[in-house]
Amino acid sequence: MAKFKKITIIGVGLIGGSIGLAIRKKKIATEVMGVFRHRSTMNKALKYGAVDKGTMDMKEGVKDARFVILATPVHSIPVLAAEASRFMKKDSIITDAGSTKEWIVGEVEKVLGSTSCVFFVGSHPMAGSEHTGVRFAKGNLFEDSPCIVTKTARTDRKAIAKVASFWKSLGGKVSIMSPVEHDRTVSLVSHLPHVVAFGLAGAVPGREMAVAAEGFKDTTRVASSDPELWADIFLTNKKAILKAGLMFERYYRDILKAISKGDYRRTVRVLANAKSKRDRYIHGKEK
Amino acid sequence: MAKFKKITIIGVGLIGGSIGLAIRKKKIATEVMGVFRHRSTMNKALKYGAVDKGTMDMKEGVKDARFVILATPVHSIPVLAAEASRFMKKDSIITDAGSTKEWIVGEVEKVLGSTSCVFFVGSHPMAGSEHTGVRFAKGNLFEDSPCIVTKTARTDRKAIAKVASFWKSLGGKVSIMSPVEHDRTVSLVSHLPHVVAFGLAGAVPGREMAVAAEGFKDTTRVASSDPELWADIFLTNKKAILKAGLMFERYYRDILKAISKGDYRRTVRVLANAKSKRDRYIHGKEK
Repeated sequence: MAKFKKITIIGVGLIGGSIGLAIRKKKIATEVMGVFRHRSTMNKALKYGAVDKGTMDMKEGVKDARFVILATPVHSIPVLAAEASRFMKKDSIITDAGSTKEWIVGEVEKVLGSTSCVFFVGSHPMAGSEHTGVRFAKGNLFEDSPCIVTKTARTDRKAIAKVASFWKSLGGKVSIMSPVEHDRTVSLVSHLPHVVAFGLAGAVPGREMAVAAEGFKDTTRVASSDPELWADIFLTNKKAILKAGLMFERYYRDILKAISKGDYRRTVRVLANAKSKRDRYIHGKEK
Repeated sequence: MAKFKKITIIGVGLIGGSIGLAIRKKKIATEVMGVFRHRSTMNKALKYGAVDKGTMDMKEGVKDARFVILATPVHSIPVLAAEASRFMKKDSIITDAGSTKEWIVGEVEKVLGSTSCVFFVGSHPMAGSEHTGVRFAKGNLFEDSPCIVTKTARTDRKAIAKVASFWKSLGGKVSIMSPVEHDRTVSLVSHLPHVVAFGLAGAVPGREMAVAAEGFKDTTRVASSDPELWADIFLTNKKAILKAGLMFERYYRDILKAISKGDYRRTVRVLANAKSKRDRYIHGKEK
């Protein structure tokens, strides 16, 4: 039995499309509606079966949905949340899938105002790939993926539970934290690795890159991500990223210092410490 | 028909084992002999079918092989090459699979001396994984992988051709260059990415790492590599790695500077430049 009635997804790209496919596959809602900016994207999403219906009209898209998900670029989320909320029923829920939370949640709470009868809960399903667009959407994208749901002084407790249960039903492993804690966490495990990967891909000349093997491919995979999407994420999580960068530089410099001194035991020690941490928290969980 | 008679592999771990499996699968030699330090590793290699025969005696292992491959840690290669050469026939070839070349080739040329009747050619098949040991060996590891074969003033031209043809028969895409050029190239596309990955894994605390998703896993995959193996590689390619590090830092800092200024267009530009290079040289070649 479907847990949700109609669910509307605003922005049906890689993430929004994967949400739609997952909802439909798992029969979590009676209907999945997509809201689009362009007819061509709408036709694609319908073709790939990411939504049951599509519209380019916000009112039509959200008016009888009790659960609306914004899966658009970070900077567009507050404006679209405000627009959608105007047509939604009392006690309906809006959530999002944006990669930064302090800025998004702060802005949305500002634009919705304290008298809004629509609840907003920030979400960040930590899944995706370097690709963009609904053609790369996958119905199992959120299976066993971390998903952070945020809580502020103003967030409705029942709405949090509903949003958490939604992501769990898609296979996500949900953690609840404040937007600030979210941003600090993802600055370390997601944003910083992207900066570093873009840094590596930017630094290595094409001639050398032509003989790169699997190590380089994996280390820089996320540098093939969409620059506009990521500039957007980076600029809305500036402070935390700069701090995470300092943490990285400290360790990176320790390695280079051990190498430059030709100190074998010290080099082994700094590498082994990094490896043992990764093996413990990541490697064991790999397929 | 086999292109080679007996081939001997000294050190049958992930790389040596994959070489053995590939030779046997493709019937490139009439016999694959493995030389081991420990009986337990020999039994494992025989069990996995990585070699036809095994021995712990160098003389027995190499005496009637015309082609010997050293697949042991970097620092051990010169000593083992000297030892093996004493039992080998005139005009036989020794090559290796070590990840640095200027140090290895220089040391081997020193220990063999100019009157040696055995030819040495440095090789670096650029394949592998974060794992070690023959149980992770794969017969198709070198298929479509870059493989660098080195040439110095002293390298015999026919021996180079033979070694290049060997790696090609295993599926490798062979480039021939000087040991110095090799070290500069791999410092950028292999060693530096390892330093950066170890740096990332070392910097991020375990609590945050626990919610890491695919991006972090891939960016740090090679940080699960063997610390002793990599300390060995790093310390024998110190100068080139430190230079590569400076190139990385320059680009990485450009990204952080654009972010810290909140400059959207500049951020997009530095990211897009990195992405377009990666897409051109790497992404298009991905499966």
